[in-house]
Amino acid sequence: MRQILEINVDELVAVVQPGVVNMDLQEAVAELGLFFPPDPASWYMATLGGNVAENAGGPRCLKYGVTKDYVLGLEVVLADGQIIRTGGRTIKNVAGYDLTSLFIGSEGTLGVVTEIIVKLLPKPAARATVMGVFDEIDQACDAVNRVITSGVLPLTTEIMDGDCIKAVQSQTDYGLPSDVDAILLIDVEGWPEALTRESKIVAEACQQAGAREVRQARDEAEADKLWAGRRAISAALSNLGDKLGEDIAVPRSKIPDMVRRVRAIGQKYNLLTPVFGHIGDGNLHPYLICDRTNPEMMERVRSAAGEIFTAAIELGGTLSGEHGIGLAKRDYLSQGLHPVARERMLSIKRLFDPNNILNPGKIFEETAS
Amino acid sequence: MRQILEINVDELVAVVQPGVVNMDLQEAVAELGLFFPPDPASWYMATLGGNVAENAGGPRCLKYGVTKDYVLGLEVVLADGQIIRTGGRTIKNVAGYDLTSLFIGSEGTLGVVTEIIVKLLPKPAARATVMGVFDEIDQACDAVNRVITSGVLPLTTEIMDGDCIKAVQSQTDYGLPSDVDAILLIDVEGWPEALTRESKIVAEACQQAGAREVRQARDEAEADKLWAGRRAISAALSNLGDKLGEDIAVPRSKIPDMVRRVRAIGQKYNLLTPVFGHIGDGNLHPYLICDRTNPEMMERVRSAAGEIFTAAIELGGTLSGEHGIGLAKRDYLSQGLHPVARERMLSIKRLFDPNNILNPGKIFEETAS
Repeated sequence: MRQILEINVDELVAVVQPGVVNMDLQEAVAELGLFFPPDPASWYMATLGGNVAENAGGPRCLKYGVTKDYVLGLEVVLADGQIIRTGGRTIKNVAGYDLTSLFIGSEGTLGVVTEIIVKLLPKPAARATVMGVFDEIDQACDAVNRVITSGVLPLTTEIMDGDCIKAVQSQTDYGLPSDVDAILLIDVEGWPEALTRESKIVAEACQQAGAREVRQARDEAEADKLWAGRRAISAALSNLGDKLGEDIAVPRSKIPDMVRRVRAIGQKYNLLTPVFGHIGDGNLHPYLICDRTNPEMMERVRSAAGEIFTAAIELGGTLSGEHGIGLAKRDYLSQGLHPVARERMLSIKRLFDPNNILNPGKIFEETAS
Repeated sequence: MRQILEINVDELVAVVQPGVVNMDLQEAVAELGLFFPPDPASWYMATLGGNVAENAGGPRCLKYGVTKDYVLGLEVVLADGQIIRTGGRTIKNVAGYDLTSLFIGSEGTLGVVTEIIVKLLPKPAARATVMGVFDEIDQACDAVNRVITSGVLPLTTEIMDGDCIKAVQSQTDYGLPSDVDAILLIDVEGWPEALTRESKIVAEACQQAGAREVRQARDEAEADKLWAGRRAISAALSNLGDKLGEDIAVPRSKIPDMVRRVRAIGQKYNLLTPVFGHIGDGNLHPYLICDRTNPEMMERVRSAAGEIFTAAIELGGTLSGEHGIGLAKRDYLSQGLHPVARERMLSIKRLFDPNNILNPGKIFEETAS
């Protein structure tokens, strides 16, 4: 199930088996001048079946949306062994209910996806990167708002907080100042002449928001240098100890509040809580650095994680932006969902899987055996 | 239920009641430098509740996708009187199944939508129009393919066939040649400097595809002139008689085949069958000109419509791109859907509306009383 079955340039469509790795599809379509936007950070190993199961996001979601916005149709094996085909090869299709979207993000609990039809786009010509360095995370949020209200829809708006910056700098000198609250990386893409204008708008927005420093990459190599620190976060945090990574999303205006809440929770439980994420779409990854062999600490970690979920929901957000619920967040789902919505979801689960054989126990505790 | 409840610039979100007219939302967000992409042709009167019920499309779908790509959350009154809230205010959200998408396009058969949270984008700076005049509709399709593989994702790719051109020219002289097979209108949008480049690419693509003539608008007024004929189609066709408008979608590579099939069906039943539509996303609107007081002719019209649906499905397309099924296409839905998918849709209908009180008879004949 790892074959790219078709890439159709004239229809901007690809048909893949679920075991195809996201990066392999990206590379195959790029050779034809095309582009598949969904880009989870694990794209080098994440399969498209997995992307569909979790409705995967990634840094490019602010501009391009999530996996479901690029899936036109599915072949799915149902719990009773019947094979179903949903959607098709057209962008527009309103013949009956949208079963395609129902399977997307259902984490394998409603059926087994065996084929995926995705929508492609023409590949943008070029990309530019601007870095803003801020003494206060609020200023970084203000910068993103200024960019967007200037008519620029950035490709990515990645943020890393002071703890992340210190962690990566302690490994390798990426030339990042260790005494700041937030570093923002904004990428824009398009034709070179438009990038010149957009980079200028982004740099000015950072300055107007009070950036201590603004750096602009003039070419691909410089952009890679600006991104190197951001790319090193995951490995650098691993060097601090064990880590529990979360995946909440809040309305963008609530990002500064959310970061403050995470920090307060970290202080309360005496835990290091570095935060990075995709500020433009409100998706933050607060990490809890811990020692899995220390039961007392892990008790604090569990309490802190619970309070982070509660804070996200109180701020109008969600338990999971792009990783899903699975087992780890199952016990918190009742908090994060409207009770009638949750009850209807369970009814749909029972309709599609009356014998509870598809990923039992995932998402809903009622399905645990 | 006609209030815009909130427009949040910092979160790129609007909250509306279902009775708000699409155009009113467009205008309200445009004043704040924002943009709501879904643009059904009836936008000046179509409500957002209706757009959600039909997962409405429009000319801009090739670039921006359909209504469901812009709805983040819903409030819905269920058949049993319970109120449900789905989704939220964030672009990313994988907490449980995607009930939001299930309600979108369900034509009021699963619940009554009472509030809609939509995603907004920054407003693009400018727009340019190129018109290509073609002796063969295949050339127009070739031109669109050339545009897209040159890295340009057009805002719109509107086509009108010879019958439409003759109809509008017979009303008013829009300066369109009456002896051609197809006129293509391609709009691009973005920063002015990028538009210069993209207009040139589009014009060259039309020439390379064999256009008899290519016209470029240098400003808004000229663009309006190029679009005037396209905008006059609906009224011009009404002047030919009664009309039955269809709404099929096929994979883009099948557009020339589909147009030929429509013409052959028109000849077979001795009916005039003008075709226009959104070529980039494969959505065509073949019209059947008729006289509703003539039963013999209406019998031919019904047969012709059925054959058009069958042709669309045989070419890998769908019965409805953006108008939905309702009553008019209900009897054809079995052709257009995988049988297991249809059976599951009916199960979902029974789950949400066991007493069949929500729009009975729409979409599925089994729900007719």
